[in-house]
Amino acid sequence: MTIINDIFTTLTVERQFPVLTVTLNRPHVANAMNLQMVDELMQVMAQVEEKQYRVLVLKGANGNFCSGGDIKDMQLAKNDTSALVKLNRTFGLMIETANTLPAVVVCLLQGAVLGGGLGLACISDVAIAQTSTKFALPETSLGIIPAQIAPFVVQRIGLTATRRMALLGLRIDANQALTMGLVHQLANDDVDMSQQLNQTIKLALKCAPNANQVTKALLHDVANMPMTALLDNAAMSFAKAISSEGVEGTKAFMQKRPAHWTTLPDD
Amino acid sequence: MTIINDIFTTLTVERQFPVLTVTLNRPHVANAMNLQMVDELMQVMAQVEEKQYRVLVLKGANGNFCSGGDIKDMQLAKNDTSALVKLNRTFGLMIETANTLPAVVVCLLQGAVLGGGLGLACISDVAIAQTSTKFALPETSLGIIPAQIAPFVVQRIGLTATRRMALLGLRIDANQALTMGLVHQLANDDVDMSQQLNQTIKLALKCAPNANQVTKALLHDVANMPMTALLDNAAMSFAKAISSEGVEGTKAFMQKRPAHWTTLPDD
Amino acid sequence: MTIINDIFTTLTVERQFPVLTVTLNRPHVANAMNLQMVDELMQVMAQVEEKQYRVLVLKGANGNFCSGGDIKDMQLAKNDTSALVKLNRTFGLMIETANTLPAVVVCLLQGAVLGGGLGLACISDVAIAQTSTKFALPETSLGIIPAQIAPFVVQRIGLTATRRMALLGLRIDANQALTMGLVHQLANDDVDMSQQLNQTIKLALKCAPNANQVTKALLHDVANMPMTALLDNAAMSFAKAISSEGVEGTKAFMQKRPAHWTTLPDD
Repeated sequence: MTIINDIFTTLTVERQFPVLTVTLNRPHVANAMNLQMVDELMQVMAQVEEKQYRVLVLKGANGNFCSGGDIKDMQLAKNDTSALVKLNRTFGLMIETANTLPAVVVCLLQGAVLGGGLGLACISDVAIAQTSTKFALPETSLGIIPAQIAPFVVQRIGLTATRRMALLGLRIDANQALTMGLVHQLANDDVDMSQQLNQTIKLALKCAPNANQVTKALLHDVANMPMTALLDNAAMSFAKAISSEGVEGTKAFMQKRPAHWTTLPDD
Repeated sequence: MTIINDIFTTLTVERQFPVLTVTLNRPHVANAMNLQMVDELMQVMAQVEEKQYRVLVLKGANGNFCSGGDIKDMQLAKNDTSALVKLNRTFGLMIETANTLPAVVVCLLQGAVLGGGLGLACISDVAIAQTSTKFALPETSLGIIPAQIAPFVVQRIGLTATRRMALLGLRIDANQALTMGLVHQLANDDVDMSQQLNQTIKLALKCAPNANQVTKALLHDVANMPMTALLDNAAMSFAKAISSEGVEGTKAFMQKRPAHWTTLPDD
Repeated sequence: MTIINDIFTTLTVERQFPVLTVTLNRPHVANAMNLQMVDELMQVMAQVEEKQYRVLVLKGANGNFCSGGDIKDMQLAKNDTSALVKLNRTFGLMIETANTLPAVVVCLLQGAVLGGGLGLACISDVAIAQTSTKFALPETSLGIIPAQIAPFVVQRIGLTATRRMALLGLRIDANQALTMGLVHQLANDDVDMSQQLNQTIKLALKCAPNANQVTKALLHDVANMPMTALLDNAAMSFAKAISSEGVEGTKAFMQKRPAHWTTLPDD
């Protein structure tokens, strides 16, 4: 059963538990993110976390993923420094939230993946791009800076590849994005993308829900904790996992059957 | 002269100073690591460090490298939290030791490189994989977590590629592992692997023993020390090297002859 | 108008504001860096920063980029520990300065890119290499260590690829350097390299001067600041950018014309 919620004005949201799919839906501006869209994304992610969705799929309407921050919002606020700071920082909070969301985040990329759209792509656990996708950080060519997305791009493709993209406003194609590790998989067209998405969802739903959440948090901690403390904590999480989901998981493995959490979404 | 020590029950160890070769040897379980194997690896590495072996080669018996932690150990301990924590943490200590071993660590990979086996591959200085090798972090599909190996995989292939592998339990092949930087060289078969190993050993033994140890420690410090302190220390290490091994090294270079440390292992 | 300054003995410097081009010019030793060259590079970079050049191009005379530190300087100082420490640390200070220079740094690589020369390549924002270029960290094979360049190589190609190169004294070619992310673009010959350089300069000069400086500093901060503080600061920088260069940048974008800072260098 598919429930589509229409209370959002900038997003289309499809819920097929445990998978939630969000379409950025401002096609007249190539799905540029305005403050409204940022707020609605925060609301959706709060639901994903609260209801324990296991996969969040992000995509864009009408052939583009996202062309970045909406310049009109910035123009409106341009004489009000504190409004500009808040506008920009709010966008960063949304990216931070997406980055550490317990669900597996899959981005389906096509058309324009620019600025903040590229930032969003960089926090995905799995990024699948159509071969015609174009990626860029055009901020500095507009006299502005990739302020809130810089650290996420650096985490994804490294410091020096980010410097090259940002300081040249360089436009790269999907093959280059694959080589750099910006995306993980290329799709030839919509059908291929859809098949790769289904395969990704199947794999994600074979993994135990809590184990995936704990593992994702652990991987994020690598950058933020000393190694010894990290591994000490991880050993305790391991012990907990073994005596909870691990009981079913190893039993299913021995019995060569799917674990009980391997329920596929409703058709 | 080759000395094979048979006191170990889970490992075969071949000593041809300054190269020590360890074969993980529990082929009935694809060389899964139990507590005994972890303990024996710790003993071997203590020897490598104490006797100043310059190269440690790690490989697996009968066509597989290592299928990860032995599920039987975990099952035995599953009702004893502190035993589980200790079991898991001991494995992590072994990987940490391997990661910072002064010797050059070469992994020869084939067949299954799973879970903890993949962790071990990720700490090698040189990883050579046969083209048919399969790599995966299957933990979350068993309801457990890649607790002790997470930071080492992140150091090797980056945060977001690790998230994809771990949260999908994704199986990748040798070409993908090469692209990701998980391995450095591919070999077509045993003969090719053996030739690449010999070439790697030759190169490693052309490098001065102490210079290699100091350099490896310095590279590990990059993540753990502020840049200025690191470079100040490094300048002192440099001065020491110049007036010790550097004397012979630069003399040999001027005289176009091998430096005296370039002794090859006995045949 | 091109001004060539001849006060330097180890460098040729061409100033075509806002682009400054430095040629390492000790061709009899494949442009090995001695203390004089390091001092002159520091002087040039001070000018680049003071006069707000927007692009610094680094290349080498007569078919090589740079063969590393000059062994003769080291030999002269070899019985004087404090002189050796200072010699080495001074080189590191030069690399640190180059790494954080506000200008876009482009390296044109060919022939030998060894030791300190490889260090310099690793701090560039854009590295273009001819296909015949050879890269290596030969220090340990000379009994010495890549002391001052280690962290910059690690930032560029990651910890474990650096360990492999440094501990084997491994020589790699331009294709491998591209795969590893050590360089960004390959050129077939001098003409191709020159065209790619022109294209890179054009792109860099389309980006706003101050936005580029702020962005480069922000990207460097990613490794050195907690995420939240970084993003809070970045939001303030963003607000400043919007109400300064951003006014012209977005206006030019709306009017489909180049921004006023897109002045090309004099011909």
